[in-house]
Amino acid sequence: MKISVLGTGDVGQTLAKKLIESGHEVMIGTRDVDETLARKSIRHGNPPFSEWYESNKDVKLGTFQESATFGEIVINATNGANSLNALDLAGEETLAGKILIDLSNPLDYSKGMPPSLLEGLNNTNSLGEEIQKEFPQAKVVKTFNTMWCGLMVNPGMLDGGNHINYISGNDNNAKARVKDLLKEFGWKEENLIDLGDISAARATESVLPIWVRLLGVIGNGAFNFKIVK
Amino acid sequence: MKISVLGTGDVGQTLAKKLIESGHEVMIGTRDVDETLARKSIRHGNPPFSEWYESNKDVKLGTFQESATFGEIVINATNGANSLNALDLAGEETLAGKILIDLSNPLDYSKGMPPSLLEGLNNTNSLGEEIQKEFPQAKVVKTFNTMWCGLMVNPGMLDGGNHINYISGNDNNAKARVKDLLKEFGWKEENLIDLGDISAARATESVLPIWVRLLGVIGNGAFNFKIVK
Repeated sequence: MKISVLGTGDVGQTLAKKLIESGHEVMIGTRDVDETLARKSIRHGNPPFSEWYESNKDVKLGTFQESATFGEIVINATNGANSLNALDLAGEETLAGKILIDLSNPLDYSKGMPPSLLEGLNNTNSLGEEIQKEFPQAKVVKTFNTMWCGLMVNPGMLDGGNHINYISGNDNNAKARVKDLLKEFGWKEENLIDLGDISAARATESVLPIWVRLLGVIGNGAFNFKIVK
Repeated sequence: MKISVLGTGDVGQTLAKKLIESGHEVMIGTRDVDETLARKSIRHGNPPFSEWYESNKDVKLGTFQESATFGEIVINATNGANSLNALDLAGEETLAGKILIDLSNPLDYSKGMPPSLLEGLNNTNSLGEEIQKEFPQAKVVKTFNTMWCGLMVNPGMLDGGNHINYISGNDNNAKARVKDLLKEFGWKEENLIDLGDISAARATESVLPIWVRLLGVIGNGAFNFKIVK
């Protein structure tokens, strides 16, 4: 399948690589292709995008709009604070009718560490809902936003894959197709918890404050939640 | 030990009963003792407090202030929306120097179901922190607010007790004493996750939105989180 991955950071890179390995065609979308390739800075200890791109030449690279046009499914892996703007650049008409998988979190680093959630996008609203409101014809499916990206594409690395991932969205067919994609990554049906419509994004984005504290206690992101009942 | 339990609801009843069984002396605190005993209404399918009290005569009953005066440790098991007022009635001087275990959540039911968190007490603040600010001489320890009360006092009912409870607060000695009390209930040291100072209450209170959604999916409160890593 042709898949658009918006965002050139860790999350975008990790998903793009896995999707290629699974036999999909992928175009990563970015704000400015030339600027992205020229970037020399190291973020979170990772090499510049261009170095990663050298070793992953099967991945195509384009603007947000080119990538979203290319993909039958669009994955929003941009920084939460920039997601709405990135999706605007992808274009409302481009996104209309497509499944838009939203992995982002509205993290606000401006008030110190650990981050809080952005004003207006927490508690009684969420980034997932806001995206659905601003792009009403896209089929927004919120998932994967409660874990480290390494785990998204390799759930089996912990406890035989027995830990959870939430999924929410207004379109049941879209959620079913996203589940199929997640199963390609090794996710088991019983661990994909359907929380209902996109308003559940306010619950899954609210997991971030505890996730970030646990990251501080555990020391790395290779952990996830499991439910005992 | 003499323990004060503020609040006559499910959580207060469940803890008071368990503490008595464990050999402690307990006084439940309420706003108005006569009104509490005269109450005939059924809440959450439970019988009126007076019926429960008939079967648990070892528990003492007093005002918030009488109860907080009685207890060496005070447990806030009141409704989160009323907690600050209840603690005011208990009295700042009464609480000074005491360990104040806060189990409450600032749930706001006024905006429909599922509840959100009260304005001013979420994201960049929390009820736990607000209590510590308003009662600076109390040693506030936030714990148990991320689970159903039946599980607080009987962790072994699920997966041999292998699931988690968070603990936070500014006073390390107070946290250590609270941990000892939780161990009496069957909690294991390795499952009591110390998240640091009381600002972590904003993270554990933020668990409520996902907890409430999971309650809807699972159908009852007998579940909890476990961390796989």
